Amino acid sequence: MTLNLDVIGKKYQEIPFRYDEDDVILYALGIGAGVEELDFVYEKNLKVFPTFAVIPFFPAFVPFMGEARINLPSLLHGEQKIALKGAIPPSGTLYTSAECTSIYDKGANGAVINLDLNTRDEEGRLLFENRVGLVDRSAGNFGGERGPKQEKFDPPEDRAPDFHVEYATSPDQAALYRLNGDKNPLHIDTEFAKMGGLPGPILHGLCSYGFAGRAILHSICGGDPARFKSFSVRFVGVVFPGDRLITEGWEMGSGSYIIQTRTQDNRVVLGNAVAEVV
Amino acid sequence: MTLNLDVIGKKYQEIPFRYDEDDVILYALGIGAGVEELDFVYEKNLKVFPTFAVIPFFPAFVPFMGEARINLPSLLHGEQKIALKGAIPPSGTLYTSAECTSIYDKGANGAVINLDLNTRDEEGRLLFENRVGLVDRSAGNFGGERGPKQEKFDPPEDRAPDFHVEYATSPDQAALYRLNGDKNPLHIDTEFAKMGGLPGPILHGLCSYGFAGRAILHSICGGDPARFKSFSVRFVGVVFPGDRLITEGWEMGSGSYIIQTRTQDNRVVLGNAVAEVV
Repeated sequence: MTLNLDVIGKKYQEIPFRYDEDDVILYALGIGAGVEELDFVYEKNLKVFPTFAVIPFFPAFVPFMGEARINLPSLLHGEQKIALKGAIPPSGTLYTSAECTSIYDKGANGAVINLDLNTRDEEGRLLFENRVGLVDRSAGNFGGERGPKQEKFDPPEDRAPDFHVEYATSPDQAALYRLNGDKNPLHIDTEFAKMGGLPGPILHGLCSYGFAGRAILHSICGGDPARFKSFSVRFVGVVFPGDRLITEGWEMGSGSYIIQTRTQDNRVVLGNAVAEVV
Repeated sequence: MTLNLDVIGKKYQEIPFRYDEDDVILYALGIGAGVEELDFVYEKNLKVFPTFAVIPFFPAFVPFMGEARINLPSLLHGEQKIALKGAIPPSGTLYTSAECTSIYDKGANGAVINLDLNTRDEEGRLLFENRVGLVDRSAGNFGGERGPKQEKFDPPEDRAPDFHVEYATSPDQAALYRLNGDKNPLHIDTEFAKMGGLPGPILHGLCSYGFAGRAILHSICGGDPARFKSFSVRFVGVVFPGDRLITEGWEMGSGSYIIQTRTQDNRVVLGNAVAEVV
């Protein structure tokens, strides 16, 4: 499939996303929170996980994917960053505008499609930004630029992590998480997953991302979403529902932490990751 | 609090309930189904658990409770029966009319409020019936009739059950189940539960009912919702999120089974229960 390069630089119309407390609670349960984190799953004093920021942009995504002619079965989520300007309200309508900033040619590794998505509240205030890097594995070698080399953020080898959090995912984690909107059959349909060369359905990258964000929030933000400023990751390995996710962080000064998430069998799944907290 | 006895015999206007595949899947996850029961949690070939019949009547319930002046903190679900006329579609709009058939005075045990709720599809066909017995523990001794003695359905003492199914509930089962609509804080709020004399939040009676219905469906209906005809229970004990639910059935002829559900510590929670299957 050939990507439609005309999408580069195009700004898409704002798409509204209306949500309520139930959506916020469903998301919290989807990333493994429960009654032990009561303020995130009970509408009385409801708090919103900062990584909920990845949910409202999804409807803005779908028309873009069609126009860009991205091939769903060969699509991977490559990179994700959120930057928050304030706590996300527990209900309301948010407006997200998308812009495709670049498409890079990684040869046999496919094409990388970079999107910036800005989400505003009902008063027009910028609430958070998403930077998304998609990989269409089938779309490389189109004669495009390779793109700049990216900065590397590896955990320091000589230091133990400053925090370490382990969470179990459930065998049904993806079945629950997909109710947040991303119904890609890759996450529930064994046949579909096998067509893509995987042994079985994999967890949404953004679900693992939510588990890691939860670990960051509870270990270095004292559970306060307002202290969570940004979180960027590269998706470097797949997670299967039922895996354990071990998230560790190394303080690098000025509220910046290098983050790494791996599974129980030591496969790194979120790498090149940085969180900024207050 | 004094109940408003004028509600007896009153038929309420039909109340619509619009739902889609996500609601059906959320319900299935809420009663403990997962990817091992893929057809109930994946929109491709989606099947609807028969006990989903208890969900669409909930909005028809709320105005009634207000008019009847039922006292929420002293409210218990006493009895529940569903009778199905056919398989429930995986999405659509259903219309439920409620009628309060009787209110009985059980003295110090409170008042029993009996409701019949009929649910029709968009073409006006009767799809299923709910018979609900509510107990307002604070509303007894109002000088009313005690009501008829009810038929007893106890498991035969001299026979092993014809089926036996054990399911674990999760500590977060009630937090998830309440997203189906019943937000009574009793199921998530420890302080609220303690005000009602309980050690902590309890699982929704209808959630346990769903677990039992799931056990019946898979053990004696071959997983086919169309073979599940009716299921009546009395709620005789509380379930705490995290408990195991053991459902057993004794065949009594003509597709009728006496059902009992107990917890891992042998407390019967669903008693006087009968299922009819084809």
